[in-house]
Amino acid sequence: MQILKFENLNKTQQEQALKRPAIGVNPQVKTIVENIIKEVKEKGDEALKEMALKFDKVKLDSIKLSQEQIDDLALKVDDELQEAIKIAYKNIYKFHKAQETQSIKVQTFDGVTCKIITRSIEKVGLYIPGGLAPLFSTALMLAIPAKIAQCKHIALASPAPLHPAIAFVAKLCGINEVYQMGGAGAIAALAYGTQSVEKVDKIFGPGNAFVTEAKKQVNNDSVAIDMQAGPSEVLVLADDKANAKFIASDLLSQAEHGADSQAILVCIDENLANNVSKEVSLQLQNLSRKEIASKAIENSKIIIAKNLEHAISISNEYAPEHLIIHTQNPNELLDQILHAGSIFLGEYSPESMGDYASGTNHVLPTYGLTRAYSSLGLADFMKRMSVQELSKEGFKKLAPIVEILANAEGLDAHKNAVSIRLESLK
Amino acid sequence: MQILKFENLNKTQQEQALKRPAIGVNPQVKTIVENIIKEVKEKGDEALKEMALKFDKVKLDSIKLSQEQIDDLALKVDDELQEAIKIAYKNIYKFHKAQETQSIKVQTFDGVTCKIITRSIEKVGLYIPGGLAPLFSTALMLAIPAKIAQCKHIALASPAPLHPAIAFVAKLCGINEVYQMGGAGAIAALAYGTQSVEKVDKIFGPGNAFVTEAKKQVNNDSVAIDMQAGPSEVLVLADDKANAKFIASDLLSQAEHGADSQAILVCIDENLANNVSKEVSLQLQNLSRKEIASKAIENSKIIIAKNLEHAISISNEYAPEHLIIHTQNPNELLDQILHAGSIFLGEYSPESMGDYASGTNHVLPTYGLTRAYSSLGLADFMKRMSVQELSKEGFKKLAPIVEILANAEGLDAHKNAVSIRLESLK
Repeated sequence: MQILKFENLNKTQQEQALKRPAIGVNPQVKTIVENIIKEVKEKGDEALKEMALKFDKVKLDSIKLSQEQIDDLALKVDDELQEAIKIAYKNIYKFHKAQETQSIKVQTFDGVTCKIITRSIEKVGLYIPGGLAPLFSTALMLAIPAKIAQCKHIALASPAPLHPAIAFVAKLCGINEVYQMGGAGAIAALAYGTQSVEKVDKIFGPGNAFVTEAKKQVNNDSVAIDMQAGPSEVLVLADDKANAKFIASDLLSQAEHGADSQAILVCIDENLANNVSKEVSLQLQNLSRKEIASKAIENSKIIIAKNLEHAISISNEYAPEHLIIHTQNPNELLDQILHAGSIFLGEYSPESMGDYASGTNHVLPTYGLTRAYSSLGLADFMKRMSVQELSKEGFKKLAPIVEILANAEGLDAHKNAVSIRLESLK
Repeated sequence: MQILKFENLNKTQQEQALKRPAIGVNPQVKTIVENIIKEVKEKGDEALKEMALKFDKVKLDSIKLSQEQIDDLALKVDDELQEAIKIAYKNIYKFHKAQETQSIKVQTFDGVTCKIITRSIEKVGLYIPGGLAPLFSTALMLAIPAKIAQCKHIALASPAPLHPAIAFVAKLCGINEVYQMGGAGAIAALAYGTQSVEKVDKIFGPGNAFVTEAKKQVNNDSVAIDMQAGPSEVLVLADDKANAKFIASDLLSQAEHGADSQAILVCIDENLANNVSKEVSLQLQNLSRKEIASKAIENSKIIIAKNLEHAISISNEYAPEHLIIHTQNPNELLDQILHAGSIFLGEYSPESMGDYASGTNHVLPTYGLTRAYSSLGLADFMKRMSVQELSKEGFKKLAPIVEILANAEGLDAHKNAVSIRLESLK
């Protein structure tokens, strides 16, 4: 891995060191997705079936799976995996259940009561990619908060043939609307509905460049989405006592996600930097996804900072999706961390634990978006509405103030709605 | 106003009745905005100054106002308006301060602690449109939660010449970064920065079609925005005892916002429907924005429902930005309201009160987006990050579970990050 002493770099080089690989959208992807969306809008289920045949090589009789089909598939999951998924389920459920909020009620002024109340988003669509790795863990991360939020209609979509472990998660979470459809076509179907797919209000879940582009396009057409997804990334922050083997394994667990993933170590000790670099090369040899991980490691860097404070400022500058803190007292540093999606404290909290089973959500803002976006949580399946109620007395007292304000903004009718009531009270 | 008996309509007619006026983006607007963004990126302040001269007819020496300039402008606001703004400030402050959340800490599993912590979004840009009505009230709605969230850099942008009331609000809220710039150019400058404008992480605030399009374009380029804005709208829900004059004044206060605004009454009594229609025509005559309001009233409707329950289902179907409930016991209906941005209960809670001074925020999702989006609040100026910490014992117990899960997803390196630690503990 490339090792850089940060203080030896000039400003441009420093910026360059923390720059993510470009993810410009291929104009071809944009056009292909536009066409797919158009086709699904026009031909509905028929288009989805054609796409399943073309992209997934599966001939479908129907898009929606029956409960029996889901049950049969779920049975194929072996007992060991079933038990492991159930433990993950419990932890994730516990953490997301704790995110429930109370409504807020405040008397802002004599006789004026204001409230915040929440409602679940009625119809949500959860997209789980197919491909090499069947991401049943992502199905857990999306389905559990949707269930806790009590969304009325929860649809899960994943390419045909549905993976048994995803069917098992759907069954475990009580989701009975499961569609076999994938890619941009699935996003279009969730956004606009077809004969057998119900239109939803918000679409969640990761995917490849086509899925990401489709989510962007339907979002521009007023369908809500969870967040804009980019390549996954980790930043490991380490002091001089950190374990090089552990760090190397964390960097590689990020790197295996994709060739465009990025893994960065920010440390304060040159020896550690060298040891981690060696360990990465060693551990890389035994990985089944060696080729992908090697490419990602090419985008990755080891940065040597002056001291821990300097290291934290570099981490805040990068604003990583995942931040692993390998220091003696990681909790003490937490207050200084300003931007990170999910934070892992200490040497026994590798990212893998949060990816699967610690209880936190693994759907996180990438590509520096953690500067402005939250990690996925229960709140993303709910919405806040405000409420106000003025007593006659409260109205009388506040009305003259509102008349002055409306008048100053030149909004006559706003003023009139107040004056006409004031008049009636005289 | 058009009066429709809902049960007499067929399904298509019902859908038609609740349809909003189309807001297809003019392709010309898209291209113009693309060019403006390009120009601001390339020429920075110079482009902004050219635009101020071209669109606002103001020759600017600098984009940023000095504290002295802000103070001088603020002094021009008369005492009465100053006092009224201060009262609105207090109510809005109180309501948004009450929205502060505590961090969450849960032990999800023996030795596994998970937390949600929040941080303010570091740099925010607040856009306040110029034009006919100087929307200092919107400046309050954006600046107060930004201040409570303790965003480090809060920039306010509004077209030149800055209106004194907006300068007064900036001063009152302690915002000292004020830029005279407007339209798509202002959004571009906030998104990408110029010589004198600092790049922000998230942009808030309403605007015309160009501003809305610019926000969409920079959002597609990874700059966060508050929400997609559409024409404003109100739905009034009334029983047979409601006051026709009050209702008409509420419909008109919505209608004066713009020709594309929509005001809908859903009631259960034909007499009331007729009376409101007459009152609207009467009150319309005296409005300064009569022409705009008349056009909006053309898009507007009075719908007669079978009963209150039916009326509520129509309201939920429409999912209004503002919902005013003119019934005897409005609080009793609240649980049944599923989709609305801001709700006004009873005859002394006209929308004007919430627009200015009750304390709730008036930046709300429009165009049915309240199905999936929240009304603006303190949470929009913050972000949630998750944290996990596993003790050695907690790790040991959960690790075998994670090994099984990572293995089932075919993610070797994820498994390895766990195994390598487990091995070291043997």
